[in-house]
Amino acid sequence: MSHRVTDELGEKEMDITTISSSFHHSENLPYVHKVGVPPKKDLLKEFTTTLKETFLPDDPLRPFKDQPRSKKLVIGLQTIFPILEWGRNYNLSKFKGDLVAGLTIASLCIPQDIGYASLANLPSHYGLYSSFVPPLVYAVMGSSRDIAIGPVAVVSLLLGTLLRNEIDPTNNIDDYLRLAFTATFFAGITQFTLGFFRLGFLIEFLSHAAIVGFMAGAAITIALQQLKGLLGIKNFTKKTDIVSVMRSVWSTVHHGWNWQTMFIGISFLAFLLFAKYIGKKNKKLFWVTAIAPLISVIISTFFVYITHAENQGVQIVQHIQKGINPSSLDQIYFSGRYLVKGFKIGVVAGMIALTEAVAIGRTFAAMKDYQLDGNKEMVALGTMNIVGSMTSCYIATGSFSRSAVNFMAGCNTAVSNIVMSCVVLLTLELITPLFKYTPNAILASIIISAVIGLVDIDAMILIWKIDKFDFIACMGAFFGVVFASVEIGLLIAVSISFAKILFQVTRPRTAILGKLPRTTVYRNIQQYPDATKVPGVLIVRVDSAIYFSNSNYIKERILRWLTDEEELLKENKQPRIQYLIVEMSPVTDIDTSGIHALEELYKSLQKRDVQLVLANPGQVVMDKLHASKFATLIGEDKIFLTVGDAILTCAPKMEET
Amino acid sequence: MSHRVTDELGEKEMDITTISSSFHHSENLPYVHKVGVPPKKDLLKEFTTTLKETFLPDDPLRPFKDQPRSKKLVIGLQTIFPILEWGRNYNLSKFKGDLVAGLTIASLCIPQDIGYASLANLPSHYGLYSSFVPPLVYAVMGSSRDIAIGPVAVVSLLLGTLLRNEIDPTNNIDDYLRLAFTATFFAGITQFTLGFFRLGFLIEFLSHAAIVGFMAGAAITIALQQLKGLLGIKNFTKKTDIVSVMRSVWSTVHHGWNWQTMFIGISFLAFLLFAKYIGKKNKKLFWVTAIAPLISVIISTFFVYITHAENQGVQIVQHIQKGINPSSLDQIYFSGRYLVKGFKIGVVAGMIALTEAVAIGRTFAAMKDYQLDGNKEMVALGTMNIVGSMTSCYIATGSFSRSAVNFMAGCNTAVSNIVMSCVVLLTLELITPLFKYTPNAILASIIISAVIGLVDIDAMILIWKIDKFDFIACMGAFFGVVFASVEIGLLIAVSISFAKILFQVTRPRTAILGKLPRTTVYRNIQQYPDATKVPGVLIVRVDSAIYFSNSNYIKERILRWLTDEEELLKENKQPRIQYLIVEMSPVTDIDTSGIHALEELYKSLQKRDVQLVLANPGQVVMDKLHASKFATLIGEDKIFLTVGDAILTCAPKMEET
Repeated sequence: MSHRVTDELGEKEMDITTISSSFHHSENLPYVHKVGVPPKKDLLKEFTTTLKETFLPDDPLRPFKDQPRSKKLVIGLQTIFPILEWGRNYNLSKFKGDLVAGLTIASLCIPQDIGYASLANLPSHYGLYSSFVPPLVYAVMGSSRDIAIGPVAVVSLLLGTLLRNEIDPTNNIDDYLRLAFTATFFAGITQFTLGFFRLGFLIEFLSHAAIVGFMAGAAITIALQQLKGLLGIKNFTKKTDIVSVMRSVWSTVHHGWNWQTMFIGISFLAFLLFAKYIGKKNKKLFWVTAIAPLISVIISTFFVYITHAENQGVQIVQHIQKGINPSSLDQIYFSGRYLVKGFKIGVVAGMIALTEAVAIGRTFAAMKDYQLDGNKEMVALGTMNIVGSMTSCYIATGSFSRSAVNFMAGCNTAVSNIVMSCVVLLTLELITPLFKYTPNAILASIIISAVIGLVDIDAMILIWKIDKFDFIACMGAFFGVVFASVEIGLLIAVSISFAKILFQVTRPRTAILGKLPRTTVYRNIQQYPDATKVPGVLIVRVDSAIYFSNSNYIKERILRWLTDEEELLKENKQPRIQYLIVEMSPVTDIDTSGIHALEELYKSLQKRDVQLVLANPGQVVMDKLHASKFATLIGEDKIFLTVGDAILTCAPKMEET
Repeated sequence: MSHRVTDELGEKEMDITTISSSFHHSENLPYVHKVGVPPKKDLLKEFTTTLKETFLPDDPLRPFKDQPRSKKLVIGLQTIFPILEWGRNYNLSKFKGDLVAGLTIASLCIPQDIGYASLANLPSHYGLYSSFVPPLVYAVMGSSRDIAIGPVAVVSLLLGTLLRNEIDPTNNIDDYLRLAFTATFFAGITQFTLGFFRLGFLIEFLSHAAIVGFMAGAAITIALQQLKGLLGIKNFTKKTDIVSVMRSVWSTVHHGWNWQTMFIGISFLAFLLFAKYIGKKNKKLFWVTAIAPLISVIISTFFVYITHAENQGVQIVQHIQKGINPSSLDQIYFSGRYLVKGFKIGVVAGMIALTEAVAIGRTFAAMKDYQLDGNKEMVALGTMNIVGSMTSCYIATGSFSRSAVNFMAGCNTAVSNIVMSCVVLLTLELITPLFKYTPNAILASIIISAVIGLVDIDAMILIWKIDKFDFIACMGAFFGVVFASVEIGLLIAVSISFAKILFQVTRPRTAILGKLPRTTVYRNIQQYPDATKVPGVLIVRVDSAIYFSNSNYIKERILRWLTDEEELLKENKQPRIQYLIVEMSPVTDIDTSGIHALEELYKSLQKRDVQLVLANPGQVVMDKLHASKFATLIGEDKIFLTVGDAILTCAPKMEET
């Protein structure tokens, strides 16, 4: 066999400088293979490869390769507007699935939209507006088949909090609205830019754990905010932290609560939660969960209408403006001090919206096994929000709960979003007056039952089990949101995520290796308690690339292992260490500081009369060891392919036993 | 042999859950060792270990272990004041070396101090003050034996630039001085705090390459500033970027230059550079370099005194205040708006001063092979600057050039700093009036010849050879300083350093492995062109810990390798891939996002009917694979100790050939 496949990166003719021919130490010893010195790479080529891996890791230009120009144009258009691709194979049977799914998510989104708009301190109809235009844009440009687009709870809350910091919506709703559109516009610009310049990886700096904590915290905060509607409290705090909210709730316990409101709210909340439970128990009954909110709205509205409970202090929606989205292009601040503020808010809210949408998209793409280009998605979402900001919408993104319903209801393509959008259009044009008597309490119940799913206790437990540091990040974000505010929680989440990265590169692990019995394999003696150390040799594995941020630590840590070992050997009156083998397999890269550290290590070891030996440096490291002449300094013959080979040469007697 | 040394971390009794007994696949196959599942660690213990590695990597408490209380006190005092330790063995022969070294660096520092003070926009005597008190404090508390303490060029320039941004020294020298002392105070506090809380590793986030670039840029900037003194220009720009300075120089070429000044300046600069060259050529003649500045000052001062060149437009020092440092405790801003500004400037300048001092300390400690505790050094440097700020000194730190002279002149302990300090004291008390006729041009020459050594072309070339990304950081910092300002340069240096870390964790390398001929070793087929792929198996090595920042990329990259390979095999009509082996040796850690990515990878592979196999997951990774039940998901028997073992099982036929 021994079939040699040509090299992936297209370097068909490699200049083989490796001494690949065999050489033997002595007649008795087994075959030892030399460490490969890769051929010098072309600098420009290397640079292009790095750039490509960074910005085009998914190779988006592959379909364009070797195509005639006209075909390239078609592919290009299909890339920007995926509807042109999947639309050609669209048929009636697919539409059936999409129709059912679209109607289901519409029934779910209408009451949610009205509630979520209030989280963003916006009048109810802006929620509906945001479920009309953005889904249409997404359907044309997006490539996820399962995502349900519209306003979502967390982004609404975040946007509402950030906007309220600048303008008080109760006194100055006009400027507040203008700032909201400005923020939406820049959220779209941010999303578009990130996608267009293929910087989508930036959102990956928010760790999964931090997101879980942030989402759970936001869900609790949102639920707490709903106590206002659920209990019928009139004077409610404007802060979102749990302490302020609970104080506000308790202080009104004697005269501020309205029992009729509570009755409606709590009984329907129980109904919604029960419906949710049924859907969870039996996946086939998901539609019970999906349709329950609309049923609640209809029943409670009818109930209030006939009993005139609004006269008993039950707060109702009152008025939702009729008609479709007016233009809001002239409302966006393109100058003045609110431009900067809108920009900042837009960037933050846009990033969070993006994180949510991309996570959803990826989840369902993995379930149905299709590829999703994160950056292309961002362009679609960005365009959608830019268009939205000009048509009186606030930031829309993918909703966790509605996407799941969409998926379960059997959607096939983004047409389900179009169906939903049409239903919202009809709602706006025809039936908004019917919402007049809808009690606010019912919207509160719907929001609570919707956001409760964002508290993912199972995920938290799993995070605790897998990674304690991740758990700290998770809890930090959670408590930050619950006890301070969404911004603080977000800040904590980002900071801890970064701290983790920095920690990782500052204090990498090192391990002492021993020989596994009856093998020539050397492994961490902590992981393999039956591994034995080789007398006279200390084998240290460095578990990280050696960079400026850790080079000094690694050098000192290796020397400390040596000192510890020497002390121990002295106590036990055993032979001293003569060779220090550094296992470099996990050392994937080294920089100038790292080379300096190795040089210093070498000097220190020379003073102690210990020989430095390297095992299995990788391609990049080997390159740099040569470029810096370090390989010549310690001697080429001190660099081995494996620890086993090194031991063969350093302590041949040991090997034989 | 097989001697088993007890585990380093003190866990004498390990609960061995590893199935370390042998098991054989079949009679024909060689011995396969199981992957070790380490015993569950105590959470608290793990946490303490991590904390200890982070903050006490050098184990500073080791000498205190198992000591009686009185001894502990003595060791404690000796730790804080190392003079108590080395002072006991101090003798006359050591003093001889220190005396010579001290006198040499004093002769070097006095003219430098006067010049550097002007870089910080301070009157000359503050430079001398800063060479009197801080070295005394350092001698008592510091543990480097070779460092020479005092004002240095780069920190003086940085401090001067930052201070001038706040207060104009020409109009308001009093407030300027107060802010300088405030900044010095907070620089000291910063240094002390970092050391005391063992956060010294924070300065390691400034990469070596960035420092080389920053220093070179600062040196050029400083040298350019000296054109004012060297050419006798009166109206000189206050900006430090090269464009402004050169414009300022050219615009004065016809009427602003003073030829007498130029004659003095340039001839002495030639002399100084020649002296430097001699010292470099013959290391024994280092004293020529060291003493040349003082000789220049004496000759030129005498020359001006007898020729009265000051009447010809040659600018002279005029007046240096006599007497030792007055107290400046009451001048520090402990409140008001300058408190915050002084704090910010102090933090930045303090960090840079620290970086320089620690780098020098480490360099010489490595040369003489003694250990230097970076954090302890920071406490010493911090105390020194705090005391300095109260005695009219500005930020002092270790000087590269003077420390080298100190080392070459044969210093043995920090006593050479005390000697220097005494000489400065005598200078301040007795001979400052003699500097009256010293021409400014001579100070300019001295500064230029001193800072020119900071432009380390060799280091830059080496950086270029070793690491192109490092070179970008280096040049970024360099051009930032030269074309913008020291702050911008510093910002660029820090940003690029961080970007490098983030890049490393976002886009780790992956490699396809092949079998090396006549071994069971599998290596990167790019590094080892004679390695051959195993038919039906794709072996991918992931070269990084799998974290949230790269988990998605890694998953997609592996799938892309698979797709590429499958296309290639299809073209060549070869058997399809049945097994995907992920070599996990370099994967030193994994977090929850990483586990998710593996799960998604597993699902995708299942859909393609490819079996996922893992080789050599380390201790931490194995732990988490079990905690998350991923090991059970893919099957324990799909995790192998080595790629070779995996191949034995997956493609046994291949192995036999």
